[in-house]
Amino acid sequence: MRPYSEMTKSELADAKAALFKEYEAYKSLGLKLNMARGKPAPEQLDLSMPMLDVLDSRSDCTSGGVDCRNYGELLGIYEARKLFGELMGISPEETIVVGSASLTFMYDCFCRAMLKGVLGSEKPWCKYDKIKWLCPVPGYDRHFRICEFLGVEMIPVKLTEWGPDMDAVREAVKDETVKGIWCVPKYSNPLGSVYSDECVRELASMETAAKDFRIFWDNAYMVHNVYEDIPMLNILEECKKAGNPDRVYMFGSTSKVTFAGAGVGFFGASKANVEFTEKQIIVESISWDKMNMLRHVRFLKDVDGIKAHMAKHAEIMRPKFDAVLNTFEEKLAGKGCGTWVKPHGGYFVTFIANRGCATRINELVKAAGLTMTGPGATHPYHDDPDDAYLRIAPTYPSAEEVKKAMEIFACAAQIATIEKLEEAL
Amino acid sequence: MRPYSEMTKSELADAKAALFKEYEAYKSLGLKLNMARGKPAPEQLDLSMPMLDVLDSRSDCTSGGVDCRNYGELLGIYEARKLFGELMGISPEETIVVGSASLTFMYDCFCRAMLKGVLGSEKPWCKYDKIKWLCPVPGYDRHFRICEFLGVEMIPVKLTEWGPDMDAVREAVKDETVKGIWCVPKYSNPLGSVYSDECVRELASMETAAKDFRIFWDNAYMVHNVYEDIPMLNILEECKKAGNPDRVYMFGSTSKVTFAGAGVGFFGASKANVEFTEKQIIVESISWDKMNMLRHVRFLKDVDGIKAHMAKHAEIMRPKFDAVLNTFEEKLAGKGCGTWVKPHGGYFVTFIANRGCATRINELVKAAGLTMTGPGATHPYHDDPDDAYLRIAPTYPSAEEVKKAMEIFACAAQIATIEKLEEAL
Repeated sequence: MRPYSEMTKSELADAKAALFKEYEAYKSLGLKLNMARGKPAPEQLDLSMPMLDVLDSRSDCTSGGVDCRNYGELLGIYEARKLFGELMGISPEETIVVGSASLTFMYDCFCRAMLKGVLGSEKPWCKYDKIKWLCPVPGYDRHFRICEFLGVEMIPVKLTEWGPDMDAVREAVKDETVKGIWCVPKYSNPLGSVYSDECVRELASMETAAKDFRIFWDNAYMVHNVYEDIPMLNILEECKKAGNPDRVYMFGSTSKVTFAGAGVGFFGASKANVEFTEKQIIVESISWDKMNMLRHVRFLKDVDGIKAHMAKHAEIMRPKFDAVLNTFEEKLAGKGCGTWVKPHGGYFVTFIANRGCATRINELVKAAGLTMTGPGATHPYHDDPDDAYLRIAPTYPSAEEVKKAMEIFACAAQIATIEKLEEAL
Repeated sequence: MRPYSEMTKSELADAKAALFKEYEAYKSLGLKLNMARGKPAPEQLDLSMPMLDVLDSRSDCTSGGVDCRNYGELLGIYEARKLFGELMGISPEETIVVGSASLTFMYDCFCRAMLKGVLGSEKPWCKYDKIKWLCPVPGYDRHFRICEFLGVEMIPVKLTEWGPDMDAVREAVKDETVKGIWCVPKYSNPLGSVYSDECVRELASMETAAKDFRIFWDNAYMVHNVYEDIPMLNILEECKKAGNPDRVYMFGSTSKVTFAGAGVGFFGASKANVEFTEKQIIVESISWDKMNMLRHVRFLKDVDGIKAHMAKHAEIMRPKFDAVLNTFEEKLAGKGCGTWVKPHGGYFVTFIANRGCATRINELVKAAGLTMTGPGATHPYHDDPDDAYLRIAPTYPSAEEVKKAMEIFACAAQIATIEKLEEAL
């Protein structure tokens, strides 16, 4: 297939007319599909229904002598700290198991840093005229929203397939008001990047002007491979080796392992950070939901149990990712309408449209009944300077629906490409 | 019985010797009893074990068409908002159902007020040199800890049997940096006070210099009567009548209805406050644990169901409260060693020792194996200027244990009283 950019004006006009005919046909189907958020499909949630049987009215609800029905154990029951610590590659003592979402705890950690500072802070972060935060782009809109809400200035740095552009990061952290960085290190949201060993080592070891610099390591997809599993370095280990043991806060949850929003969240960090955090969170909590922790450890059992469970998720998700990638390959390869990356896992495929085309693509697919994450969502302040990035969340609909949606999307991408070329003629 | 204050020096010496003999006998029992926190007893938790049967692997986990296993419904599932709204005497639209503890949400509301302000704030509260908060005393240590953590200056106001000293409150709120007040309006922690209708109306209608004044209405014991139920006015209703609909934030949870720390928390306020709060909490949460909400509504069913369930709690708790009150009556009446109030509900009995005696009583009972909430805990900054207040939490141990503990306590109270009298001789 020849790229549209090599076509003559009349060839483009013909192609566009044909595409609009195809588009109108899609439109007449009256579809209503929502691919805006990374939500598990009902079939994935069904996998965890047996978890509802592990605790019933005849169950022993104690864990290591602790009655999970009563107050206590601010840091979580030990067996949950052990399991989710092991999943993060760290010790139970470096692990806190919290409420039903890691996002809430990330936000909470950020608020406490603003109001009180982190271990080693000279003053609370809100006492600075301005603090800044590094945001690899494309990235997760809810991370950016936390910074925006708290008045933290976001500095975008380019995310490559192997992690953030470390030249840009190293340069930026010479500013002592740059207090940290958001990272989704494995199967990143939305690009699917997996941080390379070199990148992890550099993040752990780089010189930062801020002595209280923090990496918010949101390992949301740590066991969420869709195709083969890509091994990764343990960031806490690397931070310790580099003499910066307190630099990283690790976050994870079972929202996309068991039930979304009704799983357990967890936090990992150096023992010093855990002790410091314990002294802060005792103000806000007596203990988080230990019954749900108990339910999870009895259902998932161990790290192998989690991996076996996640393999079942992957079976359900793979045909949907295939549907996206195959449709793109079939409909768009060689046409110069944008690029996409095949992710190894996670919940998204990113489509990088030609400059200035993302908004138009979104407009077209929306009018045809397909709701996508809006353009700009992948960037701080909703500002994608290239108007190029679109996040595709294929997990919730069926594979057939995803295929149909991506046909519409591919059609829209071609129309937007031609319109843009015509503007320049 | 003659008060110790009327005894001669030698009578006091004899009495003290007898009491120390009694005390040493208690000590030799080698007891180990913890009455420090208001924790439900295992028998109370057993009442909610059937809740673990309402959801199993064959259950329909939808509520009003919402799949509770997936993301969504930031304000909680409608049937939970309806049930807990009704419990608070307000509409579902005025209700948000959150995570497993109301304390966490109170803290969160306070943090958001500090960082961003509340509806109607001119600026975030952290932008003031200092803000102040009214703290009825004796009160709940965890409320005070939130203020202390956030650097909010606490102003103690005396709590009477019928609510805070409203003369002091009215005077204090003339200061525009006084931004709010903690209230535990029903069976207050620890005094057991129930705010009178007049007090509720005054709180709702009083003139406050701060236009963004907030009453944090922690109705932790709203259905937790131990003896007869004492009806109370609806504060939100009164605030609306007085033209101050946005003045109150109501909080509650099922921590002492179902499982402590594994129940659901809820928040009630004007629709304008709920809308404002929704726009803020969307930053920290996609949704809280809807599975636990579903479990709760299917188990508790309706307000009558909650009341019937709470009557069973009261059956278990009453003998323990009786043990405290009867032992005090039997051992201390007429001796001038302090006073106590019979609460109608809640989780505590307050003992008001003679001035300067609380620390000594605590020291004595501790040495005999009885852990109590430490003296000062009932006051901001742990500063009880009279060293008089001690909080007794009788719910967790058995009635027999409570009786034994209170015998030791009564003995210690008498010793401390005599020692104090001897000092003054």
